[in-house]
Formats: sequence, structure tokens, C-alpha cells
Amino acid sequence: MTPDEHWSRYSDSLLRYDDLGFSLDLSKIDFGPDFKSGLSEACESAFKDCAELENGSIANPDENRMVGHYWLRDSKLAPSEDIRGEIEEAISSSKTFANKVHSGEILPPSGDQFENVLVIGIGGSALGPQLAADALATPGAKLNPYFLDNTDPDGIDRVLAEIGDGLAKTVSVVISKSGGTPETRNGMLEAMHAYEKAGLDFGKHAIAVTGPGSRLDKFAEAGGWIHRFPMPDWIGGRTSITGIVGLVPAALMGIDVDAFLDGAAAMDAHTRLPEVEKNAAMLLALAWHHCGSGRGEKDMVVLPYKDRLVLFSKYLQQLVMESLGKEHDLDGNVVNQGIAVYGNKGSTDQHAYIQQLRDGLNNFFATFIEVRKMRDGDSPEVEEGVNSGDFLQGFLRGTRSALYGNSRESVTISVDVLDARSLGSLIALFERAVTFYASLVNVNAYHQPGVEAGKKAAADFLGLLKNVRSTLLDSDTATAEEISGKVDGDTEDIYHALNHLEANDPRVSAQRGASPAEDRFSAAS
Amino acid sequence: MTPDEHWSRYSDSLLRYDDLGFSLDLSKIDFGPDFKSGLSEACESAFKDCAELENGSIANPDENRMVGHYWLRDSKLAPSEDIRGEIEEAISSSKTFANKVHSGEILPPSGDQFENVLVIGIGGSALGPQLAADALATPGAKLNPYFLDNTDPDGIDRVLAEIGDGLAKTVSVVISKSGGTPETRNGMLEAMHAYEKAGLDFGKHAIAVTGPGSRLDKFAEAGGWIHRFPMPDWIGGRTSITGIVGLVPAALMGIDVDAFLDGAAAMDAHTRLPEVEKNAAMLLALAWHHCGSGRGEKDMVVLPYKDRLVLFSKYLQQLVMESLGKEHDLDGNVVNQGIAVYGNKGSTDQHAYIQQLRDGLNNFFATFIEVRKMRDGDSPEVEEGVNSGDFLQGFLRGTRSALYGNSRESVTISVDVLDARSLGSLIALFERAVTFYASLVNVNAYHQPGVEAGKKAAADFLGLLKNVRSTLLDSDTATAEEISGKVDGDTEDIYHALNHLEANDPRVSAQRGASPAEDRFSAAS
Repeated sequence: MTPDEHWSRYSDSLLRYDDLGFSLDLSKIDFGPDFKSGLSEACESAFKDCAELENGSIANPDENRMVGHYWLRDSKLAPSEDIRGEIEEAISSSKTFANKVHSGEILPPSGDQFENVLVIGIGGSALGPQLAADALATPGAKLNPYFLDNTDPDGIDRVLAEIGDGLAKTVSVVISKSGGTPETRNGMLEAMHAYEKAGLDFGKHAIAVTGPGSRLDKFAEAGGWIHRFPMPDWIGGRTSITGIVGLVPAALMGIDVDAFLDGAAAMDAHTRLPEVEKNAAMLLALAWHHCGSGRGEKDMVVLPYKDRLVLFSKYLQQLVMESLGKEHDLDGNVVNQGIAVYGNKGSTDQHAYIQQLRDGLNNFFATFIEVRKMRDGDSPEVEEGVNSGDFLQGFLRGTRSALYGNSRESVTISVDVLDARSLGSLIALFERAVTFYASLVNVNAYHQPGVEAGKKAAADFLGLLKNVRSTLLDSDTATAEEISGKVDGDTEDIYHALNHLEANDPRVSAQRGASPAEDRFSAAS
Repeated sequence: MTPDEHWSRYSDSLLRYDDLGFSLDLSKIDFGPDFKSGLSEACESAFKDCAELENGSIANPDENRMVGHYWLRDSKLAPSEDIRGEIEEAISSSKTFANKVHSGEILPPSGDQFENVLVIGIGGSALGPQLAADALATPGAKLNPYFLDNTDPDGIDRVLAEIGDGLAKTVSVVISKSGGTPETRNGMLEAMHAYEKAGLDFGKHAIAVTGPGSRLDKFAEAGGWIHRFPMPDWIGGRTSITGIVGLVPAALMGIDVDAFLDGAAAMDAHTRLPEVEKNAAMLLALAWHHCGSGRGEKDMVVLPYKDRLVLFSKYLQQLVMESLGKEHDLDGNVVNQGIAVYGNKGSTDQHAYIQQLRDGLNNFFATFIEVRKMRDGDSPEVEEGVNSGDFLQGFLRGTRSALYGNSRESVTISVDVLDARSLGSLIALFERAVTFYASLVNVNAYHQPGVEAGKKAAADFLGLLKNVRSTLLDSDTATAEEISGKVDGDTEDIYHALNHLEANDPRVSAQRGASPAEDRFSAAS
């Protein structure tokens, strides 16, 4: 193709949504003449599936649930008055609550204003608020955000040390649909412990976002927490950022949640229309399908050229991989679908792995994300007539060209500015691309059966750990095999339990032999 | 295989280095009976290649350079007295300098002690210090670390806003071998601009880590900077963390650099021995080779179950992908090698993409990293007899089992504690695994020719941008095609330049047509 032909292809194919300052450039995806037409029926079906989902059909058949994240941005689409009311209440109550915190109407017992918000959650209940914080709120957030998003004791200690004396001015937001997610429950209990050690009443510093009647809901009610926000069951964690899960932390940080929702609604409006060439979400899904032959054969590398979007790569990793990584299709066939997603930010990543992307394995396609406006205010020159932002643009363009010059395809998404509205639009775009792609490859994007086996194995391990400890406390000294004669469990798991105790229980010590089978463990009783 | 056979395989094959509290578990890699013997000659060659590299041979033939990062931890191995002296001087001078800053012997002009360190670098010159900061220093670092690791103007503004008035107490460390890396130079000039705006003399707050006689070295000398540390040419960016690039920031943050180097040296001593079954680095390289058939057919997913190691995944992404992702082998054949690496931390990532890992595409192998000791001090119970750290261990074990139960292989690396010594050992382990793997697949791990095309394209774009701007300023109004009649360059690039100007140069405006070809741009002169 000549440069002129490339220019024509670029100009003719660029999809723009002027109301969103948005464009999608697929000119570096070599669809070929027949690809899209070959999938036109599948696209029709995908449009239909999505319309049914938006109308309230059971889009998650395994869990017999509706899938309602598209209603969150346009409540009049909700399939019932009740749900419409819930959505509107979530928006207004999160804003009202945040305003009361900001104005000092809601205060901690000390009487000082709240200055920090500690979000306790995991998965969608952490990553969405983390993305919003990093992309939109900091520095200068109305409440400084902190996160407990794991059950790592040292990690928890570290966050609490960063907050330090500020705990007295910290409102904790515990987010869990069921209240049963262990990492979140553990984080909450560790936080409670820290508040209590500091002589503070946790309940007077805590709010819950949880399913009505859940374990967490009851716990919060009994503890006299400041507020409880209801979480509906028709929203999954990875698509919860425009729901109450995202809105409460965002409003507390001072993010313009109306603009955020408006951006998502505007993108929804564009991508709801069943016309392939005007539908950015469908075109994106088709690009994924083309690049990975509908089998995820290529990884998606996400390269936002904007520091504030570094977590967007991680956000998309969750959204795409948890939604599309499925063993079975909707007809029960074993398909082992998915698309691996990774990335951080450009141009920084050019110094990390662009070497491999350009020269090495051709097992990926790139997704460039461009934010046109570089900064507020003037830029100093870094050489005559050139500033830092010119370099950033140059690196984006240079990398895109260099990759394509070596037959590495890429998608480029551009927004005029990064703000609450454009972030909302980007999230909505990818949510719908995932919905469409799942239809194209016939998988359920809204369940996650594959995580149960690990949870079950973890729970089994905890039961075993308790048995191993009590058995060891009753023994003189023992090897893993000796304990396995007294405890029902896999010998290797028993060995890991013994090692874990040795490292963390001051009563337990080990005498190392030539191999794990010969290691002897003892407990001071 | 029965559980007892799994236990035997685990116990018999576990490799332990007791002096490092380290173990490597490859029992969930199904090598099969003939795999290692089939590669025994290749392993012999790899040991020999590595020994030659350590003896000072030209291990990077393209750039005619020695590759000396293994000497940094054991200077008596250096191939000359001069180099040995350089290494010892780097260690002692970085510690001495940091001590002077901490003690107040070196002060900013205000007379207050330095409280912050702003590291300005990219690639290895940022990621190494970032890893050290996050894993070992914060919170409570002797100097609070900040980083400029990109040429994003808004990202720079954000870091400078976080520092705020603290700039007067901030020492900036500019790290660049040549001084010509644009992101680093731009970050430095932006930082200088900020110091000057705050009425501060940048030179009195700045130190350089750079090649003697480089552009940066001369600039720092002319500016009367506090100190200049020499950077040798036989260390590459991605292996520079145990050299002056890593030591200066680490020492300033208060990290025990002697322990860090000692850990790396101890791992080097173990993995230098040419005996496959006792060599963790060679076994790791063989696992990579086995999983990806020596062609990188599977991605490496890195899952440290430790919040402080979240950046280790990103660090390995750079180390592995930039080293191994190569178009040509050492004989000039086109091989397109590499291994894609991604990951964040467990158990958090279990709520992001373990769904796909367990159920979806089987296109990866996992690398679990376990830190046995969970925290300093006591843990509150989160349920009877169980604490947060027990859950973390349970999730690691449960996920490893669940993945293997579905034929997903994994490596598990364990260390007793996370500290400077163990981090040093982990880095040395992966550095040498990369050296060995590169030999096994016959690529040069120490150059990065693939990044040049992108840099060249970026530089061309910047030249074009200047021409487009001056041409537009002389025109009334123009489309991209009209400008392309007056400026030598690709029409699409001209269009991107015009768009970039419209978004960032207040003189330039656009009138959008139906497509990019019809967009008209104007400049107020």
C-alpha cells in the first residue's frame, strides 16, 4: 500500500463521535475484504443479544441473573420501575452523602472533618475505584484515597502506616455484595482492629456498600455504621464502576459522577445502534476477533500514552479476561476461550518491552490510547520549538508506525481530554465490546465458574491448617508424613501448612533435613 | 499420579538454598523423562557462555560491549583492576553520599534537611529504583521517593504537585547513560523549570548518574550540581539495579545496599555452578523452555503473593521481554523469539483473571512467588484460629492446585522473608535465568535493536511537526492534503501533527469535515 492509500484508508475508516471528542482508528488492522461480511450474521446476532440483555433478559443463565450495567447510565432503560428507582437513588444518595461529608454535616466523633477514604474491597470493588482515583482524583482529591485490596498482612500494615494518625479522620468504605469475600472481610476486620487500637469506634467511621440483608449488611447495622448503601444483584463486580460500587468512592473523592455517567451514556447511545461501521464497540470486537482468529490467539497489549491511565490497562485486563476466559461456550462445548491482556503506559513501556513487540514474537496486537490535550497551562520548551507533550505524541506515532512496519497490528483510540466524561465513555466502550465479542464467540461473559475451584482448595487448606496445628501441638516432633497419618489431607499440603506455621507461629520451629520429607517440625506447647 | 507420588516428586525435586531461605518448586512442571537430558548439551553450552560473559568476553557482540552485571555483587570477578575499582567506588560512594545527605552534611540552600528524592529516568533507570522503593523503602523511607519516568506533561505536573512546597527539600537524581534519552532529558528540564519557578537553584538540588563525558555529565558540571556519579558502559539498563543506577536511589531511601548486594552475590554463587539439578537459574530457564517449547509459545504470568512485590512482575516483564524478544538469533537467522510476561499480585489477581487462567486459554504458565513470613508482630484473628496471612497462604496453595488440576503448569519460588537480601537474590536469579535461556535459544540478551525504528519514527514526526506548524502559521486555512503539498512528509502524519497542534497550541483551531481528509485547520498568526 502506498502512503496515499494508507492516508485514504485512515481518513475513510476513522470513526468519530464528535460529542465525545472520540475517535477509533482501525486502519492498522488488516481486516481484508471479506472478514466483516463473513461475520455479518454473527454481528446481527450479537446486536440482538445485547438488545435483549438491555431489555432485562437473563443474560447470565448460570446464575439466573439479569445483567444491568447499561441501565446505570440511563435509568429509563431499566426493565422495571423498581430498578429504575434503585438506580436513581444510588446516584442521588451517593452524591448527597458525599456532599454531607465534604460540608462537615457528617463528621467523625472527633469533630474534625474527614480527610481520607479507605476503600476495602477486591476485584471490581477495588479496581474500579482505584482507576477512578488515579485517573481523575489525585492529587487534590476531596478525600485522599487509600485501598485495602488483598489479605496480605504486611500490605495491610503498610497502608495503615501510611494513614498513620489520619485514621481518626478516615472514613472506611467496605464493599462486598455478599459480605463473604474473605479478602474484603479480612481487610475490614484488620481495619477495625486498627481503629480500636487507636481508641476509635470503627462503626462511626464506616459505611457499607453491600447486598440488602447480606452478612455485611447485618454486621454494619449491628455496629451502628454511618450508612449502608444497597448493592443490587444484577451488576457484576467487573462492570460495577458506574454503579453504587464506583459512585460512592468517586463522589467521596470529589469526582464529577454526573459527567462520568453522562460520558458512559453517550457512548452507550452510539454503540447501541446496530450498524457495524458506525459502532465503535462492534468494530473493536471485530478487531479482537480478527487479530486472534476468534480464539484469543493474540494477546491484547494496552498502551495508554497518559500516566493517569496506567491502571486502565489493569482494569481492562480484569474486564476482558474474567468475562471472556471461559471453558465452555453457551452450548456446553469445551472451547477454552479468552484474550490475554497486559500493558502499563507509553512511552515508558517502550523502554520495557517494545523491543519484543517489534522484533520478537508476533503474538499480540496493540491498543494505543491517546489523550490529545497534554496538560493544563503552558509547557516549557525542551528543545527549540518542541515540548514534552510533542515528544509524547511523537513516541505514540513512532511506535505505532514501527510496529505496523513490522506487521504488528494496532488499534488507536483517541479522546480529546481525560476527564470524568471521557473516562466514562472509554469504560462503556470496552464493556460493550466485551458484550459483543462474547456473543461472537458464544460465551457467557457474566459468570466466573473457574474461580470456585481455587476458593474451594483454599478453604480446604485453611481447614487442614487448623488440624495440622492442633495435631502438631499435641505431638513431640513430626515430619509431614507423620502428621499425615493423623490428619486427613494431602501430605504436600500438610507440609506447606507446617512451613507456614514455622514462619508465622512463634511456637513452631523446624529442623531441616535433606529434603522436605525429612524436615522435622516441633511446637512448644 | 497419586497424591503420594506428587508428594514424592515435590519432596525429591525441591531445590533449597538454606543460606538464602530460598526454594524453587518445579513439581508442577511436567518435564517428562527425556526433556532435560535432551537439552544437556545446550545446558553445557549455556554454562560455558555464561562463564565467558562473567570473564569479560564481548557478550553483546552488536554493540561490542562486555556485560558486567554479575561483577557488581562480587567485584573480585571483574576482568580488570580498573573495573574492580569502579565497582567498589560505586558502592562506597553511594553509601557515603547518602549518609551525608541523611546526616545533614549535604543540605539544600535553604539549610533544611533533604526529605524527598525525585528520581528522573526511564526503563531500567526508573523501574529498578521504583521496585526497590515499593518493595523495601516505603513507608518510612529516609527520603520519600518520587519518580518522573515519562514525557507526559500532565504526569509530570502531577508528581510535582504531590511534592508541592517540598521541592525546596527535594534532591533530584537524573539517571541517563548518554544524557540523550528524551524522556529523561525532558523530565529533567521540566523539573528544572519547576525549581526555578519556585525560586530554587536546580543545580544545588541535583545529582547526575551518567557516563563520564556524556551530554548530561557536561550539563551537570556546568550547572554546579551537587554530585556526579559515573555510569559504566558495560551495564545495560535492565540489569542496572545492583549497579550505581540502583544503589544511589536505594542508599538515599535508606535501603541496606550491602544486604541487597550480598543476597545477589549469594544467589550468583549458587547459580554459577554448572550442575543443572542444583542450579535454580538453569532449572528456571529449562522450565521456560519446556512450557513454551523454546519458542515462547506460552506467556509467563507472575503472581507474587505479597503486596510489596507487585512491581516485581513489571520488573520481570522488562528484564525478560527486552532481553529475549529478538528478531534474529546469534547466527543471523530470523527467529522472532521472546516470552510475554505479565502479572500483578495474588490473591488480588484471583479476582481479575484467574477465571481465564483456570478455564480459558491454556496459553501461559504461572510463576508464584511466596514470602513465608507474613508480617512483623501479631495478627488479629479473622475467624477462630485463622488470620489474614493464613488466608493468603491458602489462596496461593489453592490457586496453584486448581490451576494444576486443569493442566496449567506453574513454578513456585519461596523466600522466608522479604528484605533487601532476598530481593537481591530474586533479581540475581532471574537475571541469570535470562542469561541461560538466551543461550539455550541462541539470542543476544544484551542489545535492543528493535527500539530504534520507533525512536527514528518519533524523531521524524517531531521534525515534521515543526514544519507543519510553521507552514500552517503562514497559511490561511488548510487541510492535511494541502499542507502535504508544501511539507515533505506522509499525509497521515501531517494530519496527526495538525490534530496535536489543535489540541495543544492555542493559536490553532480546526473545522471538522465529514472525514479527516475534509478537516480544515487554521492558525491565528
